[in-house]
Amino acid sequence: MSGAAPETASPLLAALAASVAEIENALDTLLPPEEGPEAPLYAAMRYAALGGGKRLRGFLVLEGAAQFRVSRTSALRVAAAIEMLHAYSLAHDDLPAMDNDDLRRGRPTLHKAFDEATAILAGDALQAHAFAVLAHEDTHSDPAVRADLCLRLAQAAGPRGMCGGQMLDMLAESSREPATEASIGRLQVLKTGKLIEFSAEAGAILGKAPGMQRHCLLAYGRELGAAFQIADDILDATATAAETGKATGKDAAAGKATLVGLLGLERARIQAERLAEQAVSHLDSFGERADLLRMLAAYTIHRRS
Amino acid sequence: MSGAAPETASPLLAALAASVAEIENALDTLLPPEEGPEAPLYAAMRYAALGGGKRLRGFLVLEGAAQFRVSRTSALRVAAAIEMLHAYSLAHDDLPAMDNDDLRRGRPTLHKAFDEATAILAGDALQAHAFAVLAHEDTHSDPAVRADLCLRLAQAAGPRGMCGGQMLDMLAESSREPATEASIGRLQVLKTGKLIEFSAEAGAILGKAPGMQRHCLLAYGRELGAAFQIADDILDATATAAETGKATGKDAAAGKATLVGLLGLERARIQAERLAEQAVSHLDSFGERADLLRMLAAYTIHRRS
Repeated sequence: MSGAAPETASPLLAALAASVAEIENALDTLLPPEEGPEAPLYAAMRYAALGGGKRLRGFLVLEGAAQFRVSRTSALRVAAAIEMLHAYSLAHDDLPAMDNDDLRRGRPTLHKAFDEATAILAGDALQAHAFAVLAHEDTHSDPAVRADLCLRLAQAAGPRGMCGGQMLDMLAESSREPATEASIGRLQVLKTGKLIEFSAEAGAILGKAPGMQRHCLLAYGRELGAAFQIADDILDATATAAETGKATGKDAAAGKATLVGLLGLERARIQAERLAEQAVSHLDSFGERADLLRMLAAYTIHRRS
Repeated sequence: MSGAAPETASPLLAALAASVAEIENALDTLLPPEEGPEAPLYAAMRYAALGGGKRLRGFLVLEGAAQFRVSRTSALRVAAAIEMLHAYSLAHDDLPAMDNDDLRRGRPTLHKAFDEATAILAGDALQAHAFAVLAHEDTHSDPAVRADLCLRLAQAAGPRGMCGGQMLDMLAESSREPATEASIGRLQVLKTGKLIEFSAEAGAILGKAPGMQRHCLLAYGRELGAAFQIADDILDATATAAETGKATGKDAAAGKATLVGLLGLERARIQAERLAEQAVSHLDSFGERADLLRMLAAYTIHRRS
């Protein structure tokens, strides 16, 4: 068992790269091929879901599942489903009526590469398809596991999860009331936190883990997600578009309240560090099999893209 | 056991009215109350889902479930979930980038009553929430039933179902190739047929019915859905906006190919009649408990709204 977070991130980077390749491959297999009369829809879904990205959520599923010796096939299906859900949320967030972004991961956003109607529709289809993948018997032989995965994803993505957070984000931009640490915290827990929590928890669901271990992974995901969000805000404030592959400095330009704006860079960095440490502490009951998850917490707050 | 479809529709109208009230009530209970910081999202979800409508899909669930003595609570949750899914699809179809409709069920469409961003988001949240309702243990004590409901809804609503049909609809409007009966048929089976099929099948899933009976209900739903679609096209061509509560004559104005345009009103009416009769024939193995479903087939093609 390894206590402190390891100093070097290179085993993590190798594992991340391998997971990215496996997840892209699973997505490629699970998304409809570009065939038949509906091919333009499938092309748009594939563009949105196969467009690269860090696959943080998918990696969390795979590493969570690895704690309980879940079959790689099962874990990859769930990882792919969560990445489909995440891809849909990005495609809809980028729409002209929402954030109106032209660039994502260094490429035109979905509605720029296709058109607005197709982008809305492909997002809708990606969300439905994510549930179809989770609910399919190939994901797990036990239907209780499949039903639980569907329930938890639906809660993480729904009105009291990601969609609720997106509403708060939209309201914050038009609000005259100043944001507080509490209001920003609630926004971020809902908008990005819930899906990251579920990603970490999903491996325990697949592994039918005892409630305590499932709760530890979920708590790890919660703190990791919060740290990740602050790191994202720090990147937006300090990195260049070339580094992140998307427009930066947008938060400040939009007058969007972030913890960086509220606390300043230095205190935000300290808070991200503290959250990453807390995340790791939830893994104390796990052995060295959880080392990659420990490294991930440190990596999350030090990445440059 | 009742052979031919009964002549009078009044027991059906009473049952429909009672179901509408029950389904509205279930939706009211299952949708988040308009409270807390995310209240504007919940208000938009409720506006979209509680805005009246015939509740055909919900009624099919309830009557399908009644064949197998499923608890009303279970059936109402599934009925509400499908109506949430249907409400999301209407809200997104009405968006400026899609059909750009201002009127729905006699009221401003969702993006007119709120704004475009909120309409996109509320639709997304309604889809997720539909799955959360299906996957929750209150819907059925057997997780295999819940997983199956999620799978079938996801398939009906996803890229090879409703979303695929919507893509075909968008492509048809910009296509220079003339529509054929086959191409219109495929569009309608996907765009509206799959969800109606699932609505009819859902009661059998809830009742853990033998495969044969499940298949009969699904086949009934398939023919009923096709008849319903032709009836809708006939209404668009002949009824007034005051009767239907939405803009009419739009198909012709948009140059949209429908079976009415292709076959003419008279032959379209005959085809709808034939489909309704075929739908009823799939219920031959069911007793008089299925009489409302038989009446529904006749009513579907004779309604004026």
